[in-house]
Amino acid sequence: MEQINNIQVVPCTSSNYLRPFRVHYNQNGTKKSWDFMQTHDSVSVLIFNTTSHCFILVKQFRPAVYMSEWERSKPKPLQPAEEESAEAAPAEPKVPEEDKAGETTEASSHQPPASAGVTYELCAGLVDKPDLSLEEIARQEVLEECGYDVPVTKLRKITSYRSGVGVTGSKQTMFYAEVSDENRVGEGGGKPQEGELIEVVKVPLHEAMTFAFDESIPKTMGVIFSFIWFHSNMSPKYKISTNV
Amino acid sequence: MEQINNIQVVPCTSSNYLRPFRVHYNQNGTKKSWDFMQTHDSVSVLIFNTTSHCFILVKQFRPAVYMSEWERSKPKPLQPAEEESAEAAPAEPKVPEEDKAGETTEASSHQPPASAGVTYELCAGLVDKPDLSLEEIARQEVLEECGYDVPVTKLRKITSYRSGVGVTGSKQTMFYAEVSDENRVGEGGGKPQEGELIEVVKVPLHEAMTFAFDESIPKTMGVIFSFIWFHSNMSPKYKISTNV
Repeated sequence: MEQINNIQVVPCTSSNYLRPFRVHYNQNGTKKSWDFMQTHDSVSVLIFNTTSHCFILVKQFRPAVYMSEWERSKPKPLQPAEEESAEAAPAEPKVPEEDKAGETTEASSHQPPASAGVTYELCAGLVDKPDLSLEEIARQEVLEECGYDVPVTKLRKITSYRSGVGVTGSKQTMFYAEVSDENRVGEGGGKPQEGELIEVVKVPLHEAMTFAFDESIPKTMGVIFSFIWFHSNMSPKYKISTNV
Repeated sequence: MEQINNIQVVPCTSSNYLRPFRVHYNQNGTKKSWDFMQTHDSVSVLIFNTTSHCFILVKQFRPAVYMSEWERSKPKPLQPAEEESAEAAPAEPKVPEEDKAGETTEASSHQPPASAGVTYELCAGLVDKPDLSLEEIARQEVLEECGYDVPVTKLRKITSYRSGVGVTGSKQTMFYAEVSDENRVGEGGGKPQEGELIEVVKVPLHEAMTFAFDESIPKTMGVIFSFIWFHSNMSPKYKISTNV
C-alpha cells in the first residue's frame, strides 16, 4: 500500500517534461492560435502469459491522477482557494512561497487516500531513442517493467492512434506479446534509480472483462481496449467466455 | 479540404488552456516531484444512427496532432534548429522574436499537408459546467457538434477511465447513443463563434472495423475502442460480421 504525504503544489514555471508552445496559423483564411505541448510518441504492450493464462499489467502511483481525483473530490462549485487548502488547489495557483516549502497539507480533510492515484496500465514507454525501432523499445519496456525477455519477432502490432489530440497529439502504437513463464528473467518494476516504483500485477483471463469494465478500478483506456481486442481476436484460441 | 498556412510557433509563457503545476510529495518515505497539468474531465459519445446504420463521428483539424506529425517527419536524429526552420521546431524553443511575428514558415519543405492534422474522433466535450450532469453535457455536445437532439435517458454509459495518466490524469466517461434521422434537428459543426470548425462524418456499420484498424486514417483510441465495443455488444442486434 502506497504511503503518500507531505503534498505541496506550486505553479510550474519551467519544466523539462511539460513544454508549452503556441502555434499561430491560418485555417481556410481565418487566423487561429492553439496552445499545445510537445511530447514523445509512445508504445504500449498487452502482455499475455500463456503459462498462467493471465494478462500482465503494471500498477503505479500517478501524481497527475491523484491531483485530478483530489480536485474532483472538492465541494462544488469551486470557490477561490482558502488559506488552509491553497497549496492543494491547482485551480487557484498562488505564487510559490519558498519559506513554506516544508509545510504539509496532511491536515486537509479533503485529501484522498493514496489509492485514488494508483492506476492499472499496460506496460508502456516513450519513443525517445532514435536508434531503436518501436518494437525494440517495446521489448525493452517489457523487460524493464515486467521482467519478461520477449524476442522482437514475437511482438505483434495491434494498431496505432493519436492521443491527447487537444494538447499533445502524439502517436501511440500498441503491441501484443505472448510470453510464458520461461521468458521470465527478472522481477520487473522499472528503474528505481529513475524514480520508477512499478508493481507488476496479473489479471486472470477469466476475470479480464469484469476487470475491464469495473469503474472502481482506475485504469487507462488502453487496458480496456486491449482486453476487448483480445476477447474479439483470441477468444477462439483461448476459449474464453463471450459475456462482455 | 483544409487550407493551413502562415504557421508560426512560439514558446508559450502563459496560457489559459495549459497550466503546468509541480507537486512535491513523499512516497513511502522518498521525496519525489512531478509536473502535471490541470484539465477538465471529459465525456465522449459513440453515436449510432439506426436509420442509416452509420456511426456519427466528428473530424477536425487538430493543431497539436499536426505539429506532432511535423516533428516526426523531420530528418532524424534531431539537430539543433536551423535558422530557416527555427519557428517550426518546438524541440528547440527560442525566445519569441516579436518583430518576426508576421513571418511565415510556408517555404519549409518539411511542412506536411493539412490532412496530417485532421483526426476522426468521437463527439466529445469537457466537463466544465458544474450544474450539469455528465449525461446533460454529453447531450449538449451531441446537439452542438452533430445536430442530433437525443434525450438524456437514451444515453447509455459504456465505461470510464483515466486519460493522460502522466500529465493530466483526468477522467473520461464514454456514452453510447442510438439516434435516428428523426432526431436530426441541425447541421452540427460545433460553435464557429468559439473557433470550432467541425465536420460531421458517417462511417457505415459494415465498414466500421476496417475503418477502426486502418492506420492511415488518423483517429483517437476512443473511436477504435467504441467500435470494437459495439461489435462485441451490439452485433447480435445489428447482425454485423465478426471478422475484426
